[in-house]
Amino acid sequence: MSRIAYFADLMTTLFERRPGKPDVASRAPIAELCAALLSSRGEVSGARLARDILAHYARLDAEGRRAFFAYLAADLDLDPDRLTEAAAAYKAKRDARTLAKLTREAEPRRQELFRRLNQAPGATGELVRMRLDLLNLLPEAPELGVIDPDFQHLFASWFNRGFLVLRHIDWRTPANILEKIIEYEAVHAINDWDDLQRRLRPNDRRCFAFFHPAMPEEPLIFVEVALTKGVPGSVQTLLAEGRTPLADGEFDTAVFYSISNCQEGLRGISFGNSLIKQVVEEVRVDLPQVSRYVTLSPVPTLARWLEKVAPERPPVAQVLEAAAKADPKAMEPHKAILRRLTAEYLLHVKRGDGMPADPVARFHLGNGALLHDVHALADTSANGFRQSCTAMVNYLYDVAKVERNNEAFVTDRQVAAAKQVLALADQGETTGKK
Amino acid sequence: MSRIAYFADLMTTLFERRPGKPDVASRAPIAELCAALLSSRGEVSGARLARDILAHYARLDAEGRRAFFAYLAADLDLDPDRLTEAAAAYKAKRDARTLAKLTREAEPRRQELFRRLNQAPGATGELVRMRLDLLNLLPEAPELGVIDPDFQHLFASWFNRGFLVLRHIDWRTPANILEKIIEYEAVHAINDWDDLQRRLRPNDRRCFAFFHPAMPEEPLIFVEVALTKGVPGSVQTLLAEGRTPLADGEFDTAVFYSISNCQEGLRGISFGNSLIKQVVEEVRVDLPQVSRYVTLSPVPTLARWLEKVAPERPPVAQVLEAAAKADPKAMEPHKAILRRLTAEYLLHVKRGDGMPADPVARFHLGNGALLHDVHALADTSANGFRQSCTAMVNYLYDVAKVERNNEAFVTDRQVAAAKQVLALADQGETTGKK
Amino acid sequence: MSRIAYFADLMTTLFERRPGKPDVASRAPIAELCAALLSSRGEVSGARLARDILAHYARLDAEGRRAFFAYLAADLDLDPDRLTEAAAAYKAKRDARTLAKLTREAEPRRQELFRRLNQAPGATGELVRMRLDLLNLLPEAPELGVIDPDFQHLFASWFNRGFLVLRHIDWRTPANILEKIIEYEAVHAINDWDDLQRRLRPNDRRCFAFFHPAMPEEPLIFVEVALTKGVPGSVQTLLAEGRTPLADGEFDTAVFYSISNCQEGLRGISFGNSLIKQVVEEVRVDLPQVSRYVTLSPVPTLARWLEKVAPERPPVAQVLEAAAKADPKAMEPHKAILRRLTAEYLLHVKRGDGMPADPVARFHLGNGALLHDVHALADTSANGFRQSCTAMVNYLYDVAKVERNNEAFVTDRQVAAAKQVLALADQGETTGKK
Amino acid sequence: MSRIAYFADLMTTLFERRPGKPDVASRAPIAELCAALLSSRGEVSGARLARDILAHYARLDAEGRRAFFAYLAADLDLDPDRLTEAAAAYKAKRDARTLAKLTREAEPRRQELFRRLNQAPGATGELVRMRLDLLNLLPEAPELGVIDPDFQHLFASWFNRGFLVLRHIDWRTPANILEKIIEYEAVHAINDWDDLQRRLRPNDRRCFAFFHPAMPEEPLIFVEVALTKGVPGSVQTLLAEGRTPLADGEFDTAVFYSISNCQEGLRGISFGNSLIKQVVEEVRVDLPQVSRYVTLSPVPTLARWLEKVAPERPPVAQVLEAAAKADPKAMEPHKAILRRLTAEYLLHVKRGDGMPADPVARFHLGNGALLHDVHALADTSANGFRQSCTAMVNYLYDVAKVERNNEAFVTDRQVAAAKQVLALADQGETTGKK
Repeated sequence: MSRIAYFADLMTTLFERRPGKPDVASRAPIAELCAALLSSRGEVSGARLARDILAHYARLDAEGRRAFFAYLAADLDLDPDRLTEAAAAYKAKRDARTLAKLTREAEPRRQELFRRLNQAPGATGELVRMRLDLLNLLPEAPELGVIDPDFQHLFASWFNRGFLVLRHIDWRTPANILEKIIEYEAVHAINDWDDLQRRLRPNDRRCFAFFHPAMPEEPLIFVEVALTKGVPGSVQTLLAEGRTPLADGEFDTAVFYSISNCQEGLRGISFGNSLIKQVVEEVRVDLPQVSRYVTLSPVPTLARWLEKVAPERPPVAQVLEAAAKADPKAMEPHKAILRRLTAEYLLHVKRGDGMPADPVARFHLGNGALLHDVHALADTSANGFRQSCTAMVNYLYDVAKVERNNEAFVTDRQVAAAKQVLALADQGETTGKK
Repeated sequence: MSRIAYFADLMTTLFERRPGKPDVASRAPIAELCAALLSSRGEVSGARLARDILAHYARLDAEGRRAFFAYLAADLDLDPDRLTEAAAAYKAKRDARTLAKLTREAEPRRQELFRRLNQAPGATGELVRMRLDLLNLLPEAPELGVIDPDFQHLFASWFNRGFLVLRHIDWRTPANILEKIIEYEAVHAINDWDDLQRRLRPNDRRCFAFFHPAMPEEPLIFVEVALTKGVPGSVQTLLAEGRTPLADGEFDTAVFYSISNCQEGLRGISFGNSLIKQVVEEVRVDLPQVSRYVTLSPVPTLARWLEKVAPERPPVAQVLEAAAKADPKAMEPHKAILRRLTAEYLLHVKRGDGMPADPVARFHLGNGALLHDVHALADTSANGFRQSCTAMVNYLYDVAKVERNNEAFVTDRQVAAAKQVLALADQGETTGKK
Repeated sequence: MSRIAYFADLMTTLFERRPGKPDVASRAPIAELCAALLSSRGEVSGARLARDILAHYARLDAEGRRAFFAYLAADLDLDPDRLTEAAAAYKAKRDARTLAKLTREAEPRRQELFRRLNQAPGATGELVRMRLDLLNLLPEAPELGVIDPDFQHLFASWFNRGFLVLRHIDWRTPANILEKIIEYEAVHAINDWDDLQRRLRPNDRRCFAFFHPAMPEEPLIFVEVALTKGVPGSVQTLLAEGRTPLADGEFDTAVFYSISNCQEGLRGISFGNSLIKQVVEEVRVDLPQVSRYVTLSPVPTLARWLEKVAPERPPVAQVLEAAAKADPKAMEPHKAILRRLTAEYLLHVKRGDGMPADPVARFHLGNGALLHDVHALADTSANGFRQSCTAMVNYLYDVAKVERNNEAFVTDRQVAAAKQVLALADQGETTGKK
Repeated sequence: MSRIAYFADLMTTLFERRPGKPDVASRAPIAELCAALLSSRGEVSGARLARDILAHYARLDAEGRRAFFAYLAADLDLDPDRLTEAAAAYKAKRDARTLAKLTREAEPRRQELFRRLNQAPGATGELVRMRLDLLNLLPEAPELGVIDPDFQHLFASWFNRGFLVLRHIDWRTPANILEKIIEYEAVHAINDWDDLQRRLRPNDRRCFAFFHPAMPEEPLIFVEVALTKGVPGSVQTLLAEGRTPLADGEFDTAVFYSISNCQEGLRGISFGNSLIKQVVEEVRVDLPQVSRYVTLSPVPTLARWLEKVAPERPPVAQVLEAAAKADPKAMEPHKAILRRLTAEYLLHVKRGDGMPADPVARFHLGNGALLHDVHALADTSANGFRQSCTAMVNYLYDVAKVERNNEAFVTDRQVAAAKQVLALADQGETTGKK
């Protein structure tokens, strides 16, 4: 039985807010409206101005948006001279008032603008989309880049872990949320509602997402989980049509086989680690029969590295040649070598800063996971052949060791790996080398 | 019919969060834990550290808390020199990276600490209480004042209007919320559950509160509303036991007769104006028969001013003398004079900055309300006699004029008042003056 | 704002009930279990027995089910002799005890069995399916027909209007409910999720369903509503892909264009009339701009009648000939005649009891609606050509006249119709008659 | 996390139903309205008539109600002759149509009236109150008794276990429900909100209630549970103010110390057994550390029996004499004897049908519980002294034995009791007997 109902109701108002009829609104230039909003005391006219500005912004074309961002960058920046002055004052006199003044000077005024815009109903989501517009503009207008730290700073505060809400996504979830799951799945595309159903409905499937109360219809990130007997080595097997789901007593492993960020406008605000940790906790409580938490993860940069080293290592070239045929049978004879190369790549190939070259590896190892196993012929989709010659990897989340692993990884760049993978990596290093 | 249920559910997790058994936790000094939390990458150990620190903090005695705040003030401050340097760099090169660095330097590290503490379940409320501890310490330890701007800055962002949720409070509200309404009522004390029931249950009573999704069981501010026929001039009449409630067709006026802030730890984060505005909107939609929105407000500083001027104005002295008897009959002959003096006080007595001396007047006039009427014998409680010789006031919220009034008040210190009150104030000025 | 949350929660338990692991249950013959359940006092073993019986029943094959029903019909019938005796006793002595005894004797024991089976979680839905099994068996085993009055009597009591709950169905409805809407739509088939979305999501579409609290995931009946400007005369126009939805201010008419019963096992338990009435009420409150409530209804038996009279009425034969081509263009020249024939059919062709021959007409006229208009080329689907040569009809629900119409229809078989339709019907009668 | 929200929403409509403005309703005699409702086809006018009748009924005075019931008893009875005829027809021809006719004749028409009245919003609760009015009338108007079997039959069907919903009652429950808990507590009166809080809020207290979806604000029955270390022998200890609640790990026993029926209008519709069983199931899942389920129950008829036997058994007279002082100290010396007498009474004193004389014993033993222990000085309230000289009893619900105990009790009148109680009972029998 649940005691949620009352607090649940808290969400009501947010959700039921009348969307605010599009005022035949103010035709004043948007900059003027922004100045008015920034100068307004209290909120007497604030919410109305905020709504007008956002409505105005929504009607802007590309050029108009660029002009708006230029205004934010130039006119609503901070003043380094006054900031320096305020810093000196605070150095001289460390009290609350002087610090408050310094704090005000240290913040570009556009940040306060964003906070005030957030008074309008639905504004949080619109600000996230506004940042996405900005990010899309940056390649051609790098001078607007100064705006982004303000978005980032604000969003990191607003989307603080303490404000996120974990939700089950299943076949009882409202359709408008589910269609977003279809849309946002970034790892193993969901073809249609039937495919979605295969991932949500069976007894041995789970899906979880983080939401923010101010954007209740927009998942921020979600993870798809398969409950399996043993650690799986092929995503096609996991997602096969017509397979027989396992009953409650039959599975012992939770497999995170797909993690997708949903909001590009929240780029750089990290949720993945928290999500995995909380899902592990959920599964642990609900399904005590599950004793192992692993991923089945892609190695998205493997093929690129293989191509780089192929000229000097003939067996690597053969692997790539076989992969080019996109035919599992052609790949079959190279499985052992591919596994060794994958282990070698993940364990021994580093970026300049000593971190693993592979971004997925950086993510999971950075979360404290251990490299548990490597598989060949594990992803035989077109994309699987292309990016990793079919290789996939299991990262293991061992709750007891996650902190230690994370510590060793962050401090000493030390990668936690199972013995079998270490052995494979050693063999990999000698494969095709002279 | 409502479509809320799904989104409602978003609140669930927050609420159902297992409270996190008090770990027989780390005995490390709290400062060490804070340093660890600030240096931790990602959140692998973050949530656990946050929980440990908050649990540790909760066990501190007064001295321990003072030491902890001293640590925050001294060790986790910003460095004005490095900030100055970063400001210079940004002046020289206005790009995102330089600004991001500046932003980091411009923020005392304790602010990031607070954000990271917020990862722990229930942390938001605990941080609000932590600030209250700080505020209580400040009189004797003003050097800790530098911490407060960081709390304020963070809370202003977290408790942004866009994240607040308005809720009806009525006799169907959970008891644990209602007992807080009893506890927090600051204007006209609620004696017990029967008294509460009289304010919530009748057809002509309403109550509304703001909540934050991360503190779903803690009202932030609430307003009590009476629906009346005409504008009332006595709070005792409003709150009388045994009165007959009005039916739906009988009332035409919504009276805000009590507004109470609930969280002292959110001092300075203003909700009142937003609350009134949104409640007006709610009532407007639900009860179209209501055509007038007024307050019935105290004048908490009136008696103090009367005492100041009494020596020179004999009739004022007589009013005070009558009030001292705390007997309505004694007050009766002075009603006319008291009304004039109240009008005079609110319209003509100012602070140094030109604002009205009375804080309640500043609040409502600052929200764009108009001083609609003044009453004598309007609050005959002990407190009413003491603070205002029984005078009370109606402020009128006329939606069509609120922005204009607010503008004139903020810009020109001009107080909107009904003609009758202006006339009374003029009479007041001559009362007892030579 | 909504106050629903708490009561909403009442549903929780029903829904969250653990599904009751399939016991490796009793292998006793089902009849023996039923006898045990009927003889059990209190419910100590009742709920367990009920679950066992239902699990047992679910595993029966066709023959087993037939045997089970034979047992219900023969062994759990009432005893007319004892009933006669009890009736005589009550005639002699009209008191509660004698009546209670009579009541017991007057009820076949299988009815008590059904009530006791309902103790098991989810039993209500299973009993509805059990009746469906029975109905499907009746054609070949009419002797089992005596069981059905007991189901009917019980279901009429359980699914009493007072226990049904009206719900909006929209794009925010859980997918598992929506897939049932797709499945159960009986009038204008829903092809896929995109088609469904076109019927639920636009601003000018609504859908409502009745649910019973004990079957929260099973709609009982639903109606699809289009909001239009004026009364529509073509369902293809209503359902067209790519049409532009009307804004809130643009529509004035609510069109019930599809009503589908969902539970065959509830055949004979009528919900349609209540549903239409309550939906009219909902729309009236939510959308005051809607001033007219009509249907766009099929005439499913028209073609059959046309075929019957065609031999003697050459123009009718021509209409049928044109319809056989299933080509709107071929139908175009016959529109006027088809309208007249449709009006004639609905107004003048009756069953033996004086009721209209057409079942849809009987339903809506029986609800107090008025025959408002008839259309040709209104349903150009294959089915539309086949069953009604493309004719469709509007029935008008005029709240002020519904009771009077219903009275006149039930008492005097008088059909309420608009003047234009009456005129058409008169013309129809002369069409092709000698 | 919970998936309830959607289904939760099902309750919404029921709850939000506009209360139906009191029509300036029909002034027709209520009997006429009832006849109209019974003769109405479909529901076109049904819901309106139902509402009118109930509104009319609500305004009746005592005499009017009696006249109304007289009408139900006389005019809406069944006709034994026609029933006999229908029974004969069914005997001759066992088919569905003949049975349906028989079924109709076998049911007094007032039963159909009640079902149709239930169409009105909120009608279920009003019908329950209507039956209570009837029950209160019966002593002086026994001829109206024939109406009651119809209420009973209908309510037994409507309040079928399968439709009830179990809910936690705690300090988060809405106040309007909680005030009903205060009002309905029948065993150990709840003095005020503070007392209520002591029973709901501590970690080692629980309360559960059954609700019906059509009466969402009215508990039907509730049970108060204490979680204790060991089996308690005093209710005052359980309910003591200022006691320290046990932490989660400290309790091992769930004690049902108070069960109260709430709706007198549902007298004879039994919920208690189901409630206990489902609460045991809830506790078992939520609190696996609880390994024992007992009651702490009164023996409400003990003193009466003691008084009866006292003349012949001097020690019994002494016990009664001590109890009359209502002073625990006076009772102290008689504890051992009182325990023996209590055991004797419960095990050996029977009604004519062989059932235990004590009604609480009949209830729990009939549910399959075992008489586990007897206590003296266990209820030292005024009522405790008066009804049982302070004796109380534990009944033990041992899930594994409940069915067997129930079987033996119902079939052979065999009372399950712990050895110690059996021994005490034997000693009891010799106490004071010659």
